[in-house]
Amino acid sequence: MEPTTTAPRTVLWLSAHPESRSLNGVLRRAGSAHLRAQGHQVLDSDLYAMGWDPVLRPADGGHGPAAEDRFRVSDDTRAAHREGRQPGDVAAEQEKLLAADALVVQFPLWWYGLPAILKGWFDRVLVSGFAFGTDPASGQRLRFEQGPFAGKCALAALTLGDRPAAIGPRGKSGELTEMLFGLLHGTFAYTGMSVLPPWALPSADRIEDARESMAGLNRRLDGLFTEAPIPYRPQFTGQYTPSWELADHVRPGETGLSIHISDAPQGAR
Amino acid sequence: MEPTTTAPRTVLWLSAHPESRSLNGVLRRAGSAHLRAQGHQVLDSDLYAMGWDPVLRPADGGHGPAAEDRFRVSDDTRAAHREGRQPGDVAAEQEKLLAADALVVQFPLWWYGLPAILKGWFDRVLVSGFAFGTDPASGQRLRFEQGPFAGKCALAALTLGDRPAAIGPRGKSGELTEMLFGLLHGTFAYTGMSVLPPWALPSADRIEDARESMAGLNRRLDGLFTEAPIPYRPQFTGQYTPSWELADHVRPGETGLSIHISDAPQGAR
Repeated sequence: MEPTTTAPRTVLWLSAHPESRSLNGVLRRAGSAHLRAQGHQVLDSDLYAMGWDPVLRPADGGHGPAAEDRFRVSDDTRAAHREGRQPGDVAAEQEKLLAADALVVQFPLWWYGLPAILKGWFDRVLVSGFAFGTDPASGQRLRFEQGPFAGKCALAALTLGDRPAAIGPRGKSGELTEMLFGLLHGTFAYTGMSVLPPWALPSADRIEDARESMAGLNRRLDGLFTEAPIPYRPQFTGQYTPSWELADHVRPGETGLSIHISDAPQGAR
Repeated sequence: MEPTTTAPRTVLWLSAHPESRSLNGVLRRAGSAHLRAQGHQVLDSDLYAMGWDPVLRPADGGHGPAAEDRFRVSDDTRAAHREGRQPGDVAAEQEKLLAADALVVQFPLWWYGLPAILKGWFDRVLVSGFAFGTDPASGQRLRFEQGPFAGKCALAALTLGDRPAAIGPRGKSGELTEMLFGLLHGTFAYTGMSVLPPWALPSADRIEDARESMAGLNRRLDGLFTEAPIPYRPQFTGQYTPSWELADHVRPGETGLSIHISDAPQGAR
């Protein structure tokens, strides 16, 4: 057992693989056990095992099966959340996320993105008024550093078939954090979470012995509450214009996703 | 009616919105009608209306409900495809895609990605041996310029809540083609398709009158078979190393997703 380096916390472990005997299944069980052995509480959302329905439907907005009213996705899901009329599976996942100090999102990379069952967790659970929005009292925009999940941290842990160089800085598949920008920046950071550099296991189809992979993931889990996050720029401190563009004085003339990461040296949290 | 500028072709229109009365629904019907009025055949995959199941399961690999064998996603779905043991819904979509000269993928952007029901179309339909793989006779890798869908073109058409500047070159949400890199490059281009610059409708929640939006999309549809694609670099002509990295002599020292786009001026196809 590793020495406990942080006070016990609660971790939501979100995973999505159709085969529990897969490498992903092995890593899930080993990683959860490793966290528990350190005293942390692990909430488990194994989406395939749960039979999670990833499809956002009118019922998510409180509409009946023969709704005559037009379903307005953002407005209606926000109202259903506010008024306690959401489907039970969505409300249960929201409770888990609220209880968690950290979110681990573990998946096989399919078509350079999340498996559908996992994408639909975000589509359905992170509704307006819960995961982002506007504070009704102050009018403050609740996202990025003002997001409702400030104080939580998030780690993406993924397997992929490509070899390591393909996701490196000049890799054909796109550098990993840029390829995952929609998840890391557009979802985790958007809702206020601190975003740890993702953990990726390339050439996953060729791995015969999972022990080294397990050890690699466990080392990252040891740093879940201490590792420095990706220093994405805050939105409301003058680095962006009100129309959501990087201000002229910040990396003037430059483009590309890396401009949204601060130049300042990273420090431990 | 616009003048017909190209010979009639077949277009697969793939769409994903839970409300047919939405702006997305209006655009889908108008765009399809516009193509048909020019003589094109439009195959319709309206995923919500079809009740499409986006979850890749062991049955996709030919496993029964009580499979004792471990489900190996890539190997088993490839074998099921080769041996005609795939679920009927998957085979039907593959037939449509094979018949199509162009693919239009239309969706609301949710969490900076595809709605789950649409992501699961790619997860389930584009199996190994169908959408990519290795030629059994020659050993040639079938992807990018050697991909099986060479000769087809693809257009992503999306609505989003962000305002226009947020998806511009310095936008907080990430420049649009970079935010969509996994779809445009990692999926469309990977399978051999020519990738048109995406069509996006920002601030979509604030649009009261759809006519201007419809006209904008229809103009892009007019260029579906003539517009210059994004000039992503080919994989097998010496610009990449065998380990899938950009070769040292190509944009030496540079990083970021834009390095995968050719510097050569674009020409019409």
